[in-house]
Amino acid sequence: MLIALDAMGGDHAPGPIVAGAVQAVQADPDLRVVLVGDQAQVEPALVQADGGAPPTAGRERIELFHCTQVVGMEESPVEALKKKPDSSITRCWQLLRQKKVDGIVSAGNTGAMVASGFMHRLFLKGVRRPGIAAVMPTLRGPCVLIDVGANVSPKPEHLFQYGVMGSIFAKHILQRPQPTIGLMNIGEEEQKGHDLAKDTHALFNASGLREQFVGNVEGRDIHRGAADVVVCDGFVGNVVLKTCEGVFEFTMKMTFQEVLGALDVERERGKQALERLVDRYDYSEHGGAPLLGIDGVCIICHGSSGDRAIKNALAVAVRYASSGLNDQIVQELAASPAAANDG
Amino acid sequence: MLIALDAMGGDHAPGPIVAGAVQAVQADPDLRVVLVGDQAQVEPALVQADGGAPPTAGRERIELFHCTQVVGMEESPVEALKKKPDSSITRCWQLLRQKKVDGIVSAGNTGAMVASGFMHRLFLKGVRRPGIAAVMPTLRGPCVLIDVGANVSPKPEHLFQYGVMGSIFAKHILQRPQPTIGLMNIGEEEQKGHDLAKDTHALFNASGLREQFVGNVEGRDIHRGAADVVVCDGFVGNVVLKTCEGVFEFTMKMTFQEVLGALDVERERGKQALERLVDRYDYSEHGGAPLLGIDGVCIICHGSSGDRAIKNALAVAVRYASSGLNDQIVQELAASPAAANDG
Repeated sequence: MLIALDAMGGDHAPGPIVAGAVQAVQADPDLRVVLVGDQAQVEPALVQADGGAPPTAGRERIELFHCTQVVGMEESPVEALKKKPDSSITRCWQLLRQKKVDGIVSAGNTGAMVASGFMHRLFLKGVRRPGIAAVMPTLRGPCVLIDVGANVSPKPEHLFQYGVMGSIFAKHILQRPQPTIGLMNIGEEEQKGHDLAKDTHALFNASGLREQFVGNVEGRDIHRGAADVVVCDGFVGNVVLKTCEGVFEFTMKMTFQEVLGALDVERERGKQALERLVDRYDYSEHGGAPLLGIDGVCIICHGSSGDRAIKNALAVAVRYASSGLNDQIVQELAASPAAANDG
Repeated sequence: MLIALDAMGGDHAPGPIVAGAVQAVQADPDLRVVLVGDQAQVEPALVQADGGAPPTAGRERIELFHCTQVVGMEESPVEALKKKPDSSITRCWQLLRQKKVDGIVSAGNTGAMVASGFMHRLFLKGVRRPGIAAVMPTLRGPCVLIDVGANVSPKPEHLFQYGVMGSIFAKHILQRPQPTIGLMNIGEEEQKGHDLAKDTHALFNASGLREQFVGNVEGRDIHRGAADVVVCDGFVGNVVLKTCEGVFEFTMKMTFQEVLGALDVERERGKQALERLVDRYDYSEHGGAPLLGIDGVCIICHGSSGDRAIKNALAVAVRYASSGLNDQIVQELAASPAAANDG
């Protein structure tokens, strides 16, 4: 399995990105990684990842693809991509299009990753718009929230396709044999919400996914595990994903203060318990979100990803590439008339 | 101060609603409450609120307005309001329109509360669409999120007005002398998001609120306190508000398990500390959200409101009615050309 990793993408690149690649190849003997980035920065990062020790096992499975440009985290995606034909993001997509790699992973500018993918039109057959699927923790195990930012003004048919793709992802990657699908809305009743929500609701009800469709779910239902797949437009999904991060951060800060302030002899134990929680649910440390609907594998990571997040993301890319998930998506979309509607 | 309280609205009405009214008049000697609801249910609830003891102080400041119908929590708002002219929600709005009360409070069907308000067209001069303002905790003290569900398909001018109204609310109710205003979006850069976000961004930048406008804020910025007022469309706001509730619930459940599982002799102390936190941030127990832009005061409460939430909501209604906030809104909108645009 060969994955191209955008070594220049992320708030702290290339250091933790390269370190994540080193850890990933150590952990998985079948993984090969192409570090896409500026040789002058990536090679020292590789040396540093070893901390002065001789290169660890698996180093021969890391290669370098040199490029000279980087799309900054705050740059306007489309303009930056036009101005920078030798950017690490563009080079990653080119490697994927040329089938030189099985997948690509980046913690860089999300908008530019998505825009470059759209420009390369590397869509699976039948896919109208790719969508980013984020895995969220719930009281009943992980669920998929799709889309979290690829498509901020979708049509009902796009949202329907997100249901199809999210469901296949939940089945193959989260091991849910018959995933339930919910539509993000502001109330449970069918007639709730704006036109996009109502029209999408009708599409699901008229489709072959009817049995899996549990109707509308509200914001508070996500973490209660009301559906294995929660479908929403990319604007809402992006805001929701980041709001979860903010609420978790806020709640844990308050909890540290209140709990540690109340404890005395078991203060250290309490602290360790809270640190375990932060470690388990830290949204910035999870393994990246796949852009579903791409012919290949594309994993988008949080800008603040550390080495562990990158290591996890590479593992997700491998699992995805081995899953046959994309073939399933193509088959399922061909069998769903609603998904093929032009709109 | 005379407030009409929808005694029939809420998941557990009328019991905790009536109990909240009893507590509120006890706490505030200037408050009078009209309980709007079915006499046959409200009177026993009043007796029960005393728990067998003689009526508490202030009972003479609670009166009853009998009505025979209730809009159910799951009913379609507009249809239900048409079918039920004697519903407690309709009666509340009529009392407000007839200036028989200074404000109204309901934990009933939010959609029906808003729809009835829109039908009565009881808008302040210059207001295009009222919006619901929710107060959220942040690391820097409370902020206002507006709109959280009154207007799911707004125009840029509506969002701009939410900025004006939210800012006046933050100034007078949250005591922020010069509140900052942020626009909910999926990235910090001006060109991010859908057309609604971009057009609203331009309106703020071209307006007299330019100095207060801090630009786009992302989901994770809300709880960090990035702006005193966060403006968004009612669909996004509603999903965000309920997502916060879900994440908080989820995080606290996990925290109880992890922390209490780790503690031994100080387990009880840890438990009490966590209970204090739940108590402080429980989204369903906060005092209700004002529908801003109404000529009068309208406070909308969480459907699962208990007596404490209702007591708090009545206090918010009093504070609002005494604040002169509505006059400020009218003045400010008259002075904001962008707000008056037809669109």
